[in-house]
Amino acid sequence: MIYLDNAATTRPDEAAVDKALKYLKEKFFNPSSLYREGFEVHREMEAARKNIMAHVVKNDKYEMIFTSCGSEADNMALFSCARRGNLVITKGEHAAIYNSAAALSKLGTEVRYAELNADGSVNEDSLLSLIDEDTRLVSVIHVNNETGAINNILDLSAKVKKKNSSTVFHSDGVQAFGKIPFNLDNCIDLYTISAHKIGGIRGVAGLIKRKSLTLHPLIYGGGQEKGLRGGTENVFSIKQFEYAAEKKFSMLKHDFNAVQRLNAYLRNALSSELFEILSSENASPYILSVSAKGLRGEILLHMLNDEGLIVGTGSACSSKNRYSRVMLACGLNEKRADGVLRLSFSPSNTEEEVKEAASLLNQCAQLLKERMQ
Amino acid sequence: MIYLDNAATTRPDEAAVDKALKYLKEKFFNPSSLYREGFEVHREMEAARKNIMAHVVKNDKYEMIFTSCGSEADNMALFSCARRGNLVITKGEHAAIYNSAAALSKLGTEVRYAELNADGSVNEDSLLSLIDEDTRLVSVIHVNNETGAINNILDLSAKVKKKNSSTVFHSDGVQAFGKIPFNLDNCIDLYTISAHKIGGIRGVAGLIKRKSLTLHPLIYGGGQEKGLRGGTENVFSIKQFEYAAEKKFSMLKHDFNAVQRLNAYLRNALSSELFEILSSENASPYILSVSAKGLRGEILLHMLNDEGLIVGTGSACSSKNRYSRVMLACGLNEKRADGVLRLSFSPSNTEEEVKEAASLLNQCAQLLKERMQ
Repeated sequence: MIYLDNAATTRPDEAAVDKALKYLKEKFFNPSSLYREGFEVHREMEAARKNIMAHVVKNDKYEMIFTSCGSEADNMALFSCARRGNLVITKGEHAAIYNSAAALSKLGTEVRYAELNADGSVNEDSLLSLIDEDTRLVSVIHVNNETGAINNILDLSAKVKKKNSSTVFHSDGVQAFGKIPFNLDNCIDLYTISAHKIGGIRGVAGLIKRKSLTLHPLIYGGGQEKGLRGGTENVFSIKQFEYAAEKKFSMLKHDFNAVQRLNAYLRNALSSELFEILSSENASPYILSVSAKGLRGEILLHMLNDEGLIVGTGSACSSKNRYSRVMLACGLNEKRADGVLRLSFSPSNTEEEVKEAASLLNQCAQLLKERMQ
Repeated sequence: MIYLDNAATTRPDEAAVDKALKYLKEKFFNPSSLYREGFEVHREMEAARKNIMAHVVKNDKYEMIFTSCGSEADNMALFSCARRGNLVITKGEHAAIYNSAAALSKLGTEVRYAELNADGSVNEDSLLSLIDEDTRLVSVIHVNNETGAINNILDLSAKVKKKNSSTVFHSDGVQAFGKIPFNLDNCIDLYTISAHKIGGIRGVAGLIKRKSLTLHPLIYGGGQEKGLRGGTENVFSIKQFEYAAEKKFSMLKHDFNAVQRLNAYLRNALSSELFEILSSENASPYILSVSAKGLRGEILLHMLNDEGLIVGTGSACSSKNRYSRVMLACGLNEKRADGVLRLSFSPSNTEEEVKEAASLLNQCAQLLKERMQ
């Protein structure tokens, strides 16, 4: 089985799982408890918080709230900061942002949508034209989860703040954290990261925030996470995230290069008669979006599945919709959007796997094309 | 080390952890994906949902939403159903309800608080007197997490609905599910359960809901959980919860009796000169709340900790506050509330452990008393 749907979820880092199991088997204590064993677990959780954040924060102006998933972190950012005035997001946002914005719109927030370029990155002119004195929050996805397009969020944030210095700038970095080199800078106020896209397990994610920014809880409870997120802390998942992230970041450049080679191979090996490449050359190499010409991506996905190759269509989250709204926003018509497949890599994918994948993609697309004639 | 803080969190069921590990190591796929492997994981997750719910639901009128923790389920119940009119809760609610209610109060919901009886159960007359035609939701904790008092929620719900048939009845069953025999009945609309209080791991809980009741998401995302809870589903934790719950419920009566014996032993073995028993005889045997006469519970906790006995003070969540608001609502003055310790059991506690615990409690309390004279 060849797994090329790593943007949907990655295989958990097994060494990190094994190392963290002690937090299920021995150190299972509630970190809010007053006895030594609970306090020790609390201390180890705080070390994880610090270590995870240190991979992308090199100053002392930030802190991080652990959440249960990236969607929760995204929701917390929007519901904390965009209850009034207007909210600017891009048409390329993940469903967690897009649907939170829709919910806020029903509560009275004016939501403005920035257009995308053909590669899925946000159109800067469109984005900046939407900012005014009532803009409370701007949210721009760091790496588009469908096309891999990288938004230059540091530059965008600086330009947004030039137009309105009180606007909060948030970015969903779920497909960026641990994959592309990046450091948070003072102009980013809020940044979402998630464990299960980089060998971590589900159940933990984080919202990195500028300390000076006031947030409100989405989940009220017993005062955990400085009162910002109730619920007994998921220490096992947090520690496994720490270990997985440590490995990821220590290998970041090496993995980036390895994945770039896999991506480039596949890009070149796919028949240009059968496939249109959608991801731009300077997108994150972890994601390669293609459209099978005149074919339905979903049918192709099932044919490939039968041959032992696992790929995605658009994002896993929106896999129930025939056409990806993000692909349509990139300017694809329905026919081209219907053929979309998302091929997403892990550094543990081998060259042999990718060669086999290219061959299967070409074969199956050819076969499907013939069947349809 | 003798662990008598099982109401804060239980040691995860190791066999259930080991059995569920395949969902981290092999079946790690995103259940929203379209290929066979993803769909199979989805099917197994749905089996878990059905099996967990079946322990307390014997008809087809209910469904369950997986959440990341009990606090999230509690928040979802309140924020979905009590945005207008008035909300009635008891003074014995967990912080997840209590603090959600406070947040709703700031948004304009009128919050009414029912008084407690001395044992921590809700005063029925007080509760019913608060219900009127504008009452949107009533939330009554099933088993009080500090005293173990059991509220007869079926009876209370029927009486609430007699006063206002459109009032939604919610109960936080986190300390009841898997511990005391109970079946949901049609008069309960919403019921919160959690994994990590019964040998499950943190990262998963559930909100059982009457199918006919419309809820709103607290976390918007990619359409998971019928659109009611975004975020990639935490299948490993869900399956481990299923396995842990299966064992718990198969042993429920046996464990109840075993824990009752431990509780009764401790109740009798504690010196009545040193300790006042706060939990009533018919409370859940899993929780025994006591007050060390004239002493500070927190100091005693640390002394016991040094001797190898782990106990709690009030709830772990509110352990940073000197006086438990629930204990004060039970009628304790600050002096008595200051001495509170919560002893909470697991069926894996042995008689020897409890004998040793009783002896340590008496010794340490005596020593502390002497020191203070």
